[in-house]
Amino acid sequence: MGRRSTARRGGALSPDAPAPPEPGELFLREIREQPDVLERIADNLANLDEAAAELRGRGIRLIRMAAHGSSDNAASYGVYAFALLAGLTAFRDSISLIVYFGAELDLHDSCLLALSQSGRTPDVVDYLEQGSRRGALTIAVTNDPASPLAAAADVAVPILAGEERAVAASKTYVAQVATLGLLAAHVAGRGERFAGALRATASVLRDWLPAAEKALAPLALEFAAVERMLVVGRGPAFATAREIALKLLETCRVAAASLTATDLAHGPVAALDGLFPVWAIAGDDAGLPTVVEAVARARAAGAKVIVSGPAAGAVPNATSRIPAPAAPLPLLEPLLTIVPGQLFASALARAKGLDPDRPAGLAKITLAP
Amino acid sequence: MGRRSTARRGGALSPDAPAPPEPGELFLREIREQPDVLERIADNLANLDEAAAELRGRGIRLIRMAAHGSSDNAASYGVYAFALLAGLTAFRDSISLIVYFGAELDLHDSCLLALSQSGRTPDVVDYLEQGSRRGALTIAVTNDPASPLAAAADVAVPILAGEERAVAASKTYVAQVATLGLLAAHVAGRGERFAGALRATASVLRDWLPAAEKALAPLALEFAAVERMLVVGRGPAFATAREIALKLLETCRVAAASLTATDLAHGPVAALDGLFPVWAIAGDDAGLPTVVEAVARARAAGAKVIVSGPAAGAVPNATSRIPAPAAPLPLLEPLLTIVPGQLFASALARAKGLDPDRPAGLAKITLAP
Repeated sequence: MGRRSTARRGGALSPDAPAPPEPGELFLREIREQPDVLERIADNLANLDEAAAELRGRGIRLIRMAAHGSSDNAASYGVYAFALLAGLTAFRDSISLIVYFGAELDLHDSCLLALSQSGRTPDVVDYLEQGSRRGALTIAVTNDPASPLAAAADVAVPILAGEERAVAASKTYVAQVATLGLLAAHVAGRGERFAGALRATASVLRDWLPAAEKALAPLALEFAAVERMLVVGRGPAFATAREIALKLLETCRVAAASLTATDLAHGPVAALDGLFPVWAIAGDDAGLPTVVEAVARARAAGAKVIVSGPAAGAVPNATSRIPAPAAPLPLLEPLLTIVPGQLFASALARAKGLDPDRPAGLAKITLAP
Repeated sequence: MGRRSTARRGGALSPDAPAPPEPGELFLREIREQPDVLERIADNLANLDEAAAELRGRGIRLIRMAAHGSSDNAASYGVYAFALLAGLTAFRDSISLIVYFGAELDLHDSCLLALSQSGRTPDVVDYLEQGSRRGALTIAVTNDPASPLAAAADVAVPILAGEERAVAASKTYVAQVATLGLLAAHVAGRGERFAGALRATASVLRDWLPAAEKALAPLALEFAAVERMLVVGRGPAFATAREIALKLLETCRVAAASLTATDLAHGPVAALDGLFPVWAIAGDDAGLPTVVEAVARARAAGAKVIVSGPAAGAVPNATSRIPAPAAPLPLLEPLLTIVPGQLFASALARAKGLDPDRPAGLAKITLAP
């Protein structure tokens, strides 16, 4: 990629005009930028000082998170990061409960943390405004420090991803995940250590990306006819499962749903067959047996199963395996396990003749209510 | 239905032996039992006295809910019921955080509430045991008061659904929803009033069921070739959206995913086309504009859209509408809005030549880790 062709656009373009990007070029370019983004976040720990100090100083016990789409998937990671690094309960809040239904909840020791790449998603802005009005600490995690979301928050935390041009999020997703992890570690007084591990993760990712791209392209060709897929993960890898499913939906038009490994056995396994494959993320952690069991059930149902993640080799009966390198800390694994999903979606979209940079009916910023 | 045929099973059965049920007969029979189940719950408010007293008496501020499958969908309703009826924050907890990752969270003013029809789902039992060990109040909501889950809890709340024989849950789902609503109302000192409204809802459902069955059968035939579907709802109707998607997956092998109305515009709308329809639940509440917008986006993408719920008539551009009668209280709507989804799944499975009572690879009780 990176090659630019004017020929296929016909003769109307002057040879000096910058050619429009190839289908999927923006998305792929931003996937490749991710190591730089992670390093930038690690190098700017001081950006999180105020948020960490407020979370500690105001005796916050509960972090309520609000977001949509990829940002909401990053929030799934926040549940684990805040609990395991800082001993704080964090959960994905119902925006409608706060914004539309006016629930009268005690928010005095809550932080309302909103995530939005653009900082312009209307109901997420409303959510923070409601929270401020009711005495909660409010934090905005956004790629645009000049956005309405940043203005509505007590503290705005920039994710430093640089402009994201592809409609499908990639680098802003990993930036949100890294920022939430770093913030949680910083609250617990371990920010420097986490930042160091984040730098090491960026370096691992940089080294691994070319091989990962090479491995994913033929796999995507093999799945070119697939229209349905389940993506399974557990623990911090559940965020990865959700984000892979969303990439498959929005860039490949695959009806993809995500679920925890254990939930697969509670119903959805009945839908699987040879044309309804599963992607399972195998983290190297205590949740691994549930993933092994889910893969066994899916294979027994006749489904093909792609297994990715650092423990992919420990899962028997996979149809395809995409190992991921180990991360320096278990909570940094999601920054690596998402990448094969992004690359698979990028390659699968092109295998299906779709342009992942221009999903039908989507704009970069969602301003719908 | 209700007709029993031995002929199609061949001549091996003696004419006196009770014939095995027709495909889908168990599921349909239990859908029809739902008004009786709701009445039984309303008539036994005293069953919830102890749980309500403990929630009030111990100064519980946070309700953490754990469940899988349909029970987890009922928990989505619990988020709204506890917040809007009792001013309590309730959320769907990460089981793995507590059970597998040993997160060190302050649980002193938390209630851990686990839902399981059988009361035998291993990690849900583990979840309650961990909670008790760490000083949390624990409540089991189950159809089997003699189950390990009930034994592990400080307080066990029976859902009074009677034995559920179909693998796909129906009456136990509505029983869990009704029980959560009644418990939340009881905590707020409004149990009797809610029980009365629940009785009225049962009566509305009983009167509506025959017409609903008649309306859904031809609609299912029209969708017999569908293999992918998105189900959209917001607020308390999100629980309905999740449960309809699960029914379609497990009984009809449709790749169905649920999402909030606003999330549709954040990516998934790009996947829609004439063969990838949407089901939208239109509640008569403040979230309605988001559903109207989601339906407009889906229609613009060329998708067929079924709109159900009490405000179905207020949503322009629907391809098909299934109105639901009004419920006596907005928080009782989910007991009615789920029913067309159950009946649609029941009819669609048969239209596809599947037996909804015997989904491939599923057992009634999930004992996997």
